[in-house]
Amino acid sequence: MALIVQKYGGTSVGTVERIQAVADKVIETKKQGHQVVVVVSAMSGETDRLVSLAKSMSHTPTPRELDVLLSTGEQVTIALLSMALSEKKHPAVSFTGGQVHIRTDNSHNKARIVDIEAARVHKALNDGNIVVIAGFQGIDEDGNITTLGRGGSDTTAVAMAAALNADECRIYTDVDGVYTADPRIVEDAQRMPVITYEEMLEMASLGSKVLQIRSVEFARKYNVNLRVLSSFEDGPGTLITDEDENMEAALISGIAHNRDEAKLTIVGVPDQPGIASQILGPIADANIEVDMIVQNVGLDNTTDFTFTVNRADFDKALKILEKTSTEIGAKDVSGDNKIAKVSVVGVGMRSHAGIASKMFKALADEGINIQMISTSEIKVSVVLAEKYLELGVRTLHSAFGLENGVLSETN
Amino acid sequence: MALIVQKYGGTSVGTVERIQAVADKVIETKKQGHQVVVVVSAMSGETDRLVSLAKSMSHTPTPRELDVLLSTGEQVTIALLSMALSEKKHPAVSFTGGQVHIRTDNSHNKARIVDIEAARVHKALNDGNIVVIAGFQGIDEDGNITTLGRGGSDTTAVAMAAALNADECRIYTDVDGVYTADPRIVEDAQRMPVITYEEMLEMASLGSKVLQIRSVEFARKYNVNLRVLSSFEDGPGTLITDEDENMEAALISGIAHNRDEAKLTIVGVPDQPGIASQILGPIADANIEVDMIVQNVGLDNTTDFTFTVNRADFDKALKILEKTSTEIGAKDVSGDNKIAKVSVVGVGMRSHAGIASKMFKALADEGINIQMISTSEIKVSVVLAEKYLELGVRTLHSAFGLENGVLSETN
Repeated sequence: MALIVQKYGGTSVGTVERIQAVADKVIETKKQGHQVVVVVSAMSGETDRLVSLAKSMSHTPTPRELDVLLSTGEQVTIALLSMALSEKKHPAVSFTGGQVHIRTDNSHNKARIVDIEAARVHKALNDGNIVVIAGFQGIDEDGNITTLGRGGSDTTAVAMAAALNADECRIYTDVDGVYTADPRIVEDAQRMPVITYEEMLEMASLGSKVLQIRSVEFARKYNVNLRVLSSFEDGPGTLITDEDENMEAALISGIAHNRDEAKLTIVGVPDQPGIASQILGPIADANIEVDMIVQNVGLDNTTDFTFTVNRADFDKALKILEKTSTEIGAKDVSGDNKIAKVSVVGVGMRSHAGIASKMFKALADEGINIQMISTSEIKVSVVLAEKYLELGVRTLHSAFGLENGVLSETN
Repeated sequence: MALIVQKYGGTSVGTVERIQAVADKVIETKKQGHQVVVVVSAMSGETDRLVSLAKSMSHTPTPRELDVLLSTGEQVTIALLSMALSEKKHPAVSFTGGQVHIRTDNSHNKARIVDIEAARVHKALNDGNIVVIAGFQGIDEDGNITTLGRGGSDTTAVAMAAALNADECRIYTDVDGVYTADPRIVEDAQRMPVITYEEMLEMASLGSKVLQIRSVEFARKYNVNLRVLSSFEDGPGTLITDEDENMEAALISGIAHNRDEAKLTIVGVPDQPGIASQILGPIADANIEVDMIVQNVGLDNTTDFTFTVNRADFDKALKILEKTSTEIGAKDVSGDNKIAKVSVVGVGMRSHAGIASKMFKALADEGINIQMISTSEIKVSVVLAEKYLELGVRTLHSAFGLENGVLSETN
């Protein structure tokens, strides 16, 4: 007997019929002899409905009260799913975040889980119940209702799995796993049977929006076996887990991409200590997040400085940079919001040389110019003109032979 | 500075605009220098929507889960009202039943309040907040969400007022007070400025559906000054309070009526000990509530036995009675579901003789036949043919001079 945590998102519980279907899937797992804890989101559309009610009350709804309001969405789903399970003769009991003491800090609308008391859930499971828990929500030290921010139900599921010491945490989504590249771009992209936390983090942060990044971080921290699978089709999905011996050989897991960024450059900056913080300080002060940063020393004791921001922040960032440019006596400022980032990701590249050069050559062979490069232990990212995005992804997918499955499997 | 509890029902908070209007009324009281606690119901229609969702999951939804579901209705309202108040620059903080420890027994869907911890509310008030509390809901000893049953928000408000030792509990409704008779029947019915708990209980139990009976019982038990007033118009409403010297003189407060009953008679019952329980036992076993009971001993050592039940239970009760009749060897069974009950109510009748005879004479003068009579310390009820209901109410209203206001006032 294993303890399995399952998480179903808003689309999977979007209608009465879908909740019934989720009940059937839950019962299937229970019938295999497992204890089952189910974490659910609000029915799709419900959170938007509540937000719009809030907006009709106030342009800036009190964060505390917004959490009181939004948390009702998941509370409706847990009750309905529990009723459906009981109707199908499988006793179920629901809990709100507060009822199982999913304790968070007090950052309303974007709280972080601090602690979970597993005892009440274990007791309900041992009494023979299926336990249904509201995702996305918790309570702070003073008993105020908090929410984890959009997508927080993934984090609830993983945190619950960690607290319960569950055997597996299964996240049901509208895709049947994590792919070597976006299947909408690369026709022969392959589902990866297994991937490490680190790789998934890189994939997620690079725009593969299957899982919320925080939930993967949580899973890695507490070593929770995380599986992404489809709510609508059967299949093993993709297991996200710790690196093990078999996986050492994994060279490249997949090709990720991101078209949400924009690039800003300031050239001819006097090269002196502290210049980076002079440039990026005002950007950070404006709450703009910076992703890639590249600095090159030029010829005449000046330096060129390029960084990327979210595309939505482009205009704002450009204005700030122009002001900074005048202040520090830089030569020029330029920007480009028609860029894309393409990355190869794989834990194996740590121990294999030549990944980067193979990547650059493959792109060059297709006449694709690389504008920026950034590397981490397990990924190499390049910035391209956006028009080359699809071609670049397909080229790299093919260059690393991913149409035959992830290399780690063939070793 | 007084502490005022206000309660607004589903119609009063039925739309975004009405919630804004409630916020204005609350602020008005706050501006008069009072501390204000507001108890609200779910937006009108919301509870029905949730019940229908539940029914789509199961014909007999788990009572525990039904409470988890229904309690979201009030939770939405408290958040929205608090947002509206904050937007209007009056800091407000909302609490669910669980958050202020409205502790109930564990009878899901019809729980009774056991205890309330007032400390958290006092603290929020002393911090300068308007406190907004979800009606209708609580938690049991094990932290399960419970609901008090329909109309339970009145009880929440009164219990809250009792726990906080509030100066007054104001129930805002769609009528502007309690009247000497139903104004739809008696054109010159008068709003009563003040009425005792006992009178209100009789009025409520006799069909004046302004307040939930339990909330009046609660108010009497804890001596809470209860005021019924309109959400839509200004006015002092009706104060429901303890009997005091001025009120001793009150003879008749009002004429109540009820057309929800039906009458059953079993005649020629052998008159022997235990016969009443033999007749009413099976009725009670079928969960049918009995209201009036009249027994007369007949000539031939048999007795006639008449009682009233809710009209919805009439057919069921008649069938049971027919079975009983055969078993105990009664002569006949008859029933009538076209009856009405009309009552005169007043604490003053305790010390004044002649109320009943004045009542009977007034009805006789109009040719109205009385089918049953029942009396309590502060009321006399008669059962009439339903067709005489309006005439009977008007006749009595006039006979006791209520068009000039309640007698207690003129003394």
